[in-house]
Parts: sequence; C-alpha cells; structure tokens
Amino acid sequence: MPPDPRFYTAAGPLPLKNLVLLTGAKLHNQVDALREVKSVAPVENAGPDDLSFFDNRKYKDAFRNSGAGACFIRPTDIDLAPAGMALLLHDAPYHAYAIAADALFPRPVIKNKISEHAFIHDSASIGAGCEIRAGAVIGPKVEIGARCLIEANAVIDRAVKIGNDCRIGAGSSISHALIGHRVSLYPGVRIGQDGFGYALSPKGHVKVPQLGRVVIEDDVEIGSNTTIDRGSNQDTVIGRGSVIDNLVMIAHNVKIGPMCVIVAQSGIAGSTQLEPGVVLAAQTGIAGHLTIGAGARIAAQSGVMRDVPSAKEYMGSPAMPIRQYFRQVAWLEKMAAYVGDKTDHE
Amino acid sequence: MPPDPRFYTAAGPLPLKNLVLLTGAKLHNQVDALREVKSVAPVENAGPDDLSFFDNRKYKDAFRNSGAGACFIRPTDIDLAPAGMALLLHDAPYHAYAIAADALFPRPVIKNKISEHAFIHDSASIGAGCEIRAGAVIGPKVEIGARCLIEANAVIDRAVKIGNDCRIGAGSSISHALIGHRVSLYPGVRIGQDGFGYALSPKGHVKVPQLGRVVIEDDVEIGSNTTIDRGSNQDTVIGRGSVIDNLVMIAHNVKIGPMCVIVAQSGIAGSTQLEPGVVLAAQTGIAGHLTIGAGARIAAQSGVMRDVPSAKEYMGSPAMPIRQYFRQVAWLEKMAAYVGDKTDHE
Amino acid sequence: MPPDPRFYTAAGPLPLKNLVLLTGAKLHNQVDALREVKSVAPVENAGPDDLSFFDNRKYKDAFRNSGAGACFIRPTDIDLAPAGMALLLHDAPYHAYAIAADALFPRPVIKNKISEHAFIHDSASIGAGCEIRAGAVIGPKVEIGARCLIEANAVIDRAVKIGNDCRIGAGSSISHALIGHRVSLYPGVRIGQDGFGYALSPKGHVKVPQLGRVVIEDDVEIGSNTTIDRGSNQDTVIGRGSVIDNLVMIAHNVKIGPMCVIVAQSGIAGSTQLEPGVVLAAQTGIAGHLTIGAGARIAAQSGVMRDVPSAKEYMGSPAMPIRQYFRQVAWLEKMAAYVGDKTDHE
Repeated sequence: MPPDPRFYTAAGPLPLKNLVLLTGAKLHNQVDALREVKSVAPVENAGPDDLSFFDNRKYKDAFRNSGAGACFIRPTDIDLAPAGMALLLHDAPYHAYAIAADALFPRPVIKNKISEHAFIHDSASIGAGCEIRAGAVIGPKVEIGARCLIEANAVIDRAVKIGNDCRIGAGSSISHALIGHRVSLYPGVRIGQDGFGYALSPKGHVKVPQLGRVVIEDDVEIGSNTTIDRGSNQDTVIGRGSVIDNLVMIAHNVKIGPMCVIVAQSGIAGSTQLEPGVVLAAQTGIAGHLTIGAGARIAAQSGVMRDVPSAKEYMGSPAMPIRQYFRQVAWLEKMAAYVGDKTDHE
Repeated sequence: MPPDPRFYTAAGPLPLKNLVLLTGAKLHNQVDALREVKSVAPVENAGPDDLSFFDNRKYKDAFRNSGAGACFIRPTDIDLAPAGMALLLHDAPYHAYAIAADALFPRPVIKNKISEHAFIHDSASIGAGCEIRAGAVIGPKVEIGARCLIEANAVIDRAVKIGNDCRIGAGSSISHALIGHRVSLYPGVRIGQDGFGYALSPKGHVKVPQLGRVVIEDDVEIGSNTTIDRGSNQDTVIGRGSVIDNLVMIAHNVKIGPMCVIVAQSGIAGSTQLEPGVVLAAQTGIAGHLTIGAGARIAAQSGVMRDVPSAKEYMGSPAMPIRQYFRQVAWLEKMAAYVGDKTDHE
Repeated sequence: MPPDPRFYTAAGPLPLKNLVLLTGAKLHNQVDALREVKSVAPVENAGPDDLSFFDNRKYKDAFRNSGAGACFIRPTDIDLAPAGMALLLHDAPYHAYAIAADALFPRPVIKNKISEHAFIHDSASIGAGCEIRAGAVIGPKVEIGARCLIEANAVIDRAVKIGNDCRIGAGSSISHALIGHRVSLYPGVRIGQDGFGYALSPKGHVKVPQLGRVVIEDDVEIGSNTTIDRGSNQDTVIGRGSVIDNLVMIAHNVKIGPMCVIVAQSGIAGSTQLEPGVVLAAQTGIAGHLTIGAGARIAAQSGVMRDVPSAKEYMGSPAMPIRQYFRQVAWLEKMAAYVGDKTDHE
C-alpha cells in the first residue's frame, strides 16, 4: 500500500545514492547505488520498490520477513536483515527515513492564489506567494508574511502578525498573537482567546481582564483543537521548535522553552514555565506557577504539583521520580495480592 | 416537558400497537393496543400522553411514582410499576425506547438543496439529494455520495471521498480520508491532519512525513471536537459501527475494530489496535503499539501500558485486572486508615 | 511591558482616587490621590506608571523589589511593600485589580455592524446594535438579542435563542439551545449536538434519539473547544454565573448549578448534577447519575465515582476526602521507601 496518489504525489523514483547524499547514511556491502526506490512503506508490507526503516525492535519479526527493497537500519542490526534488502546504515534510522520520505513525497507547494471567497480586510497586509482559501476571514491590520497557507474558514483577528512560510489550519482561530516563521497550526487550533481568570467570591466571579498576548516563536507546530490562551498581564510564550500535539490546553502566562514536546491531551495551568527540551507525555497535567527543569520528562497521565528538577523523569499523580513511582506500584501490587490471596483462602 | 417544538417535530400520536410492531415488545395484561402516546419523557416527569422507559434501577422510586402513560420495562420489573401505566414488556427496554422515540420524533429530513453560499470546487462530485449549507468549503476532486448533509462552515479537502447518507457537522474539517456510508461527524471534528510524528534529536525535531489516510467504515459516529490523525505510512482505521464520543484523540496508524465504543476525552496513541467490541470508558489513555483484545473493557481514567487480553475488564493507571485494582484500593484504604488513626490518637 | 497597543486601547491615565471609588480600596498613608497610573503590569516588571496587585505570597520577593507605581495589597502585607509605592489597601486585591484593569483597558465596544459576508436567514431576528462578522451563519428562526457580537465563521442553527450582550466566538457552533444574557462562548465551543446515547447490544449500537436542549443561564462563560451536548429527554443546564474553561466535556442531561467553576479538560458524564458553587479543578472526571453537593471542591485529576457531600473537598481516582487521600499518599510513600531501601542495601 504505497501512499494514495489521490492525496500524495511521488517525486521518485530516486536512486539510493541520492538518499545517501541527503541523509549521510552508508550503503552496506556492494549495494548498487543506482538501485532505485519509488515509494515508502512499513517493513511489514513493503515491496521491492519501497523504502522502509527499522528502528523499534518490537517489530523485529516483521523486519526479518520484510520484502522492502531498501531500509534504513542501525549498523548493529545488520544481522537481522533479510537477504537481498539494500541496507542504508544510519545511527538514527527514523530520522534518516523522515528526510528520505520527504524527498520521495514532497509537501504540496503553496499556490500563489487568494480565493475570491476569502474575506480580507482592506487594512490587512499579505506577503508574496500566499495561498488563502475560501471562507478564511482576515481582520483589520493583520500582517501575514510570504508563502503562507491560510486554509479554508480560518479566522485571523485584528492586528495578529504571522511570519513567513506558516500554515494556518482549516477552521482555526487566532487573536492577540505574534507568530514567527515556519509555524504550523493544525485545524481547529484556538490561539489568543481570554485566559480563565476570575477573582472568585461568594457574591460572584469577577472576570480579570486578560491584557497579554500569545507569542509563538519560529518552527513551532500545534496540533488540532489545541487551545492556547493569551496572557493576563504578560505573554503566553511557545518557544522555538516546540511541538504540541492535539487537544492540549495551555493556560495564560505559560512559558514553554525551545524544543519542548507536549503530547496529546496534556494541560498546563497558568504561569507555569517549561524550560528547554521538556517532554510531557500524553494526558499529563501540570499545576500552575511551577517550573519544570530543562530536559525533564513527565510520563503519561502524571499530575505534577511541585517543581521538577532538570533532566529528571517523573511519573504518577501526584508525580514523583519515576523509580520511586514504580517501586510504589510494585510494592502495593505485592502487598495487596498477598493479603488478597490470604482472604481468598479463608 | 415534551421535546421543544421549536427543535423537534412530532410524528405522533401513535397507538401502542405500532410500538409493539416496531420493537417486538409485548403488551402487559389487557392494555388497549389502540391507546396512544404523543411524546416521550423521563419517568420522573412524564405525563399520561408520554412514553418512557425503566432500565436503571437507580431510578426505581421515580418509576414507582411516575405518571407516564406507557413505559418499556423488563418483565421482571412489573411489580414496581404504578397502577394505570401501560406496560410494554421488553428484555432491553432502553433499546426498545430508542426505536420508539425515533418513530415519534423522526430525524429531520435532508433537504435537496445546495446553498449558494457554499464554496464547491468545479471538479468535486456531489451525489443526489444532498443538503450543503452556507460557508461549507468543498475542495477539488472531492466525491460525496447521495443524501448527505454538509453543515455550515464544514471544510472537506482535496480528493476526500464520502459515501451515502452521511452527516458532516458544522465547522468540522476533513482531509486525506475515505469515509463510508451512514457516517456522522459532529461539529468541530478534525479528520486526516498530520499525525504527531517527529524524529527527535538534541539538534532539533525532524518532522516525519505523514503519508497515510484515515479510513472510516460504515455506520460510525464521531463526537464533537474529536481529532483523528491520518496514518504515517499506513492508514488510521475506524471500524464499522464504532461510536466515538467528544474530545477523543486518535493518533496515527491506530486501528479500531468494528463495534467499539470510546467515551469522551479518551486518547489512543500511535499504532495501537482495538479489536472488535472494545469499550473504553471516559478519560482513558492507551499507550502506543498495543493490542486491546476483542470485547475488553477499560474503566474510566485508566492508563493502559501493556496489551489487554480479550473480554477482560481493566482499571487503574497503570491498568490491571479490575478485581486486582479494587483489591489494591481497598487494602490501601484500610491500611492507611489504620495507621492514620493511630497517628491521630498519639 | 504594558498591554500591546495593537491589541488594547488604554483609557487612562487615571488618578488613584478613581480607582478608590471603583473598588472601595483605601489609600495607605499620605499618598496623593491625584497621582496617576497609565497601565497595568505584574509586580516583577511593573514601572512607575503601572498599577499592579499582590495576592499570592509565592511572589513575595518579586513584590519586595517591585517598581510598580501603585499596587492593591492586603492591609496585612503593608510591611512587605517597597518604599515609594502607592498602596491601595483591599481585602481582595486580585478582585480590586480586576475592576481597575477593566477601567484602564475597557473591553472593545461592540460595533453596530452586520457584515455583508455573514449569511443570515430571512426568518432570523437580530436585536439592535449587534456586530456580526464575515462568515457567520445564522439559521432560520434564530433569535438574537441586543448588542451581541457574533464572531467570524460562527454557526447558529435553527431556532436557537440568544439573549442580550452575548459573545459567540469564532468558529463555534450552537444548535438546540436557549442562551441567556451576557453569555460568552469562546472560539470553537460546541453547544447542542447529540449526546452520546446508544443502546448497546452485541448485534449493534442503536442510537437513542436526543430530544432535549441546552439551556445556558445568564452570565455564563464557556471556554474554547469545550463541548456541551444537549439532553436526551430533558435539558442540559448550565446555571447562572458558572464559568467553564477550555476543552471541557459536558454530557447530556447534566445540570450545573449557579456559580460553579469547572477548570480545563474536566468531564462530566450524563445526568450528573452539580449543586451551586461546586469547583472542579483541571482534568477531573465525574461519573454519570451523581450529585455533587453545594460548594464541594474536587481536586485536579480526580475521578469521582460516588456522590460528594456539600462543602467537602475530594481528591484521587477514585476520589475520597482530601485528608484521607493525602494520608494514603504519604503512607504509601513511606512504606514503599522503607522496603525499597532495604532491598537496595541487600
């Protein structure tokens, strides 16, 4: 099952030597560098014209029986390869595959075309080479850089600024935001609406004016239906190169360092800071006013109630060092099983 | 409080004999089969013209005092019924009620009408009898079957294929997808955007091209603001008859078997497979690359980190067999209370 | 960093005496009541023209070194204030700040303007002074009150009724709903779609007709991408003055009392009732058919499986009284660490 030609256009076939040049991989043995691949496929159903990769040893058996014509693998995995497969040796096979797949199936080119059914305010400024689709609404004083794709029915509110080479997904909305270059917002993303700020009292909840912005730095990607509220009296900031998955909630005044990874359905409460390179696995929750140290990793479904030191891995709700967490889980399992067995025998 | 006539149109009154024919229920005692019901209501506020159902014994007292004219109940619950109520005996009262309510308040008929304010590409093909509302954007080479309802401001991207009798909700978006017959997508659903695939490295995150599709089989329903990412090098598949609630996240390459039920705010990580008939309660998380066996049930808020065998019920984070989970909860409660009491007395 | 003039318009400068009048604060010592503030800022980067507030003692050090010209503080915190700062004494400094900030940066005035690119059905009725933006779709028999803002690409379906002074966010959708006055729906909100009601059986899932409405009372705010399903045979109700954060799921037939607070990514299953003043912290889940008593507070990530008494604080999954929860956490930590240490030393 190669990529469906209704949705993807192949640029190939490409000879292996091109892939070597692009990725820095080394060809194993006397493979003919002019041998070609046309498409990509996972090891379990790849054929002789397909390029694949072997990275997760969970799929070792599928790899051993794979009919892929060529495959990126680690030098240490050569012994597992079936005969006849062209091996592209690389220390990071998945990384190399990503580059090669991009060459075989390049992203669609942005068309230099503004739909007559887009609604663009006279005072908005649109850079060269943008594609703006039907139903997009672009407000007064909006500034959009060059070569941006604004998909159908996206809404960009007053004075928002967007850099070059950005993609704004279908049906998304942006207000009170400054957005860098090469930023992708997927469909349904909500950027810049009021943060959840109320001064609570028995007599009523008084809304606290939300007077900040959302600042999104270069090379950020933000997944579908994720929401990022603007700051209350400072900015909410998403640092350069960070990637955020679907249905994530980022509250007002949160600062996310460069190169963070935030997996689906996680939430970060107000004024918390993620230092560079933090990874939040899926469905984690981080309380407000905390600092998560550089390079820290938080396991899925964890609930973080205190600062996390740099480079540590935490897990659990409430979150604790991951070794301590698994010790507790194991101890509880053992103790309860012991007592349970006794009870069952009585 | 019968259904508000501003929103629902009654087809009745209907005589009980029609409901018997539709549902296979049996009339208890000498109830007049020509007796009519006009509307539906829950037992606690139903009146003599209303049809109701009694299924959840939690509402036993309300049922005993109910003024409902007619009610679907299990034969074993006859003793609980108030005098004068017409009893429709059925082994699955809620199921029978669903069919009868549909007869009393039929779904709105799709109008054969394409709004002049919808934006439909010349190369798109639209089946007979479709209703397409204002602001809908339908891209090049899209194929839509017969009698579909495309609600306002929905976006259907290039080459997407949709079967007959589908409903695409307001403000939703679809790309890279093949959709079967009788599929309902509720408002704000996101189908087919890029999966969250990055080859991570200290020097930067390289995006892995996402070259698969989303395949949605017949009779699937997908709740509001749910997101389903397309596959990376294979398809994301939602099997026939599966129903998915709101705000669910389904990652790339996930396969969901026929007849699964996925309750709100659950998330399934990449490449995991749900075999037929799996039920995920609300807010569960399933890690990537797992298999959840046919008919397995996962309790709310569980975090599944390993394969689950068929037909088993799991709970907890990390998830375990539900009996083991409750044993642990009970044991921990007892032990901590004992020690706590001692501490309090010191 | 004062509020960005591209997004916010200052109404000031304002003399302190005006703030005193608005908030009931008391000026400390001989501060000149004619002294002016121009803008607002958090204590850590406020300057001499800025108004700030000191409420959370976590930021004590920042406050001690703050250059803010004026600041709302509690009378008991006077000693912490740096010299030269004008102190506005108030028992609820954050509350007072909210009022003052609103005076300094008033919300944008609704324009009396209906975009020629909005699609409004002939039978809809629109009150005086509304602003309706491009791409908004307003269906037959919709009634909208005075001075409402309907943002771009919002969809309001047949017969929905909306009161005065409401704001309907960009790209949101509403059906089968009655909405009061001064209600704000943020972008991407989904109101009134079918609840998740199926009669499950091995032969198939029969959809149960959803024949109720969503009723939203006055002064409610609902966050981005939150979903509220309509009732099945009664109404889903959001009580007066309740505030709901982003990505929250509210199922059919849920009743939320006046003045509740529901933080991000929480979910409430069908037919559950929240009495007045309940607070759900982030990522909580409440099972169906429960009653959460007035003023109860549920901690973040809790999973509530049973009724909660009024005014109690619960935590954990399954949720329990918060003191019991922390006792369990502490006991488990201590016991597992003890055994772990022993194991490590062997």
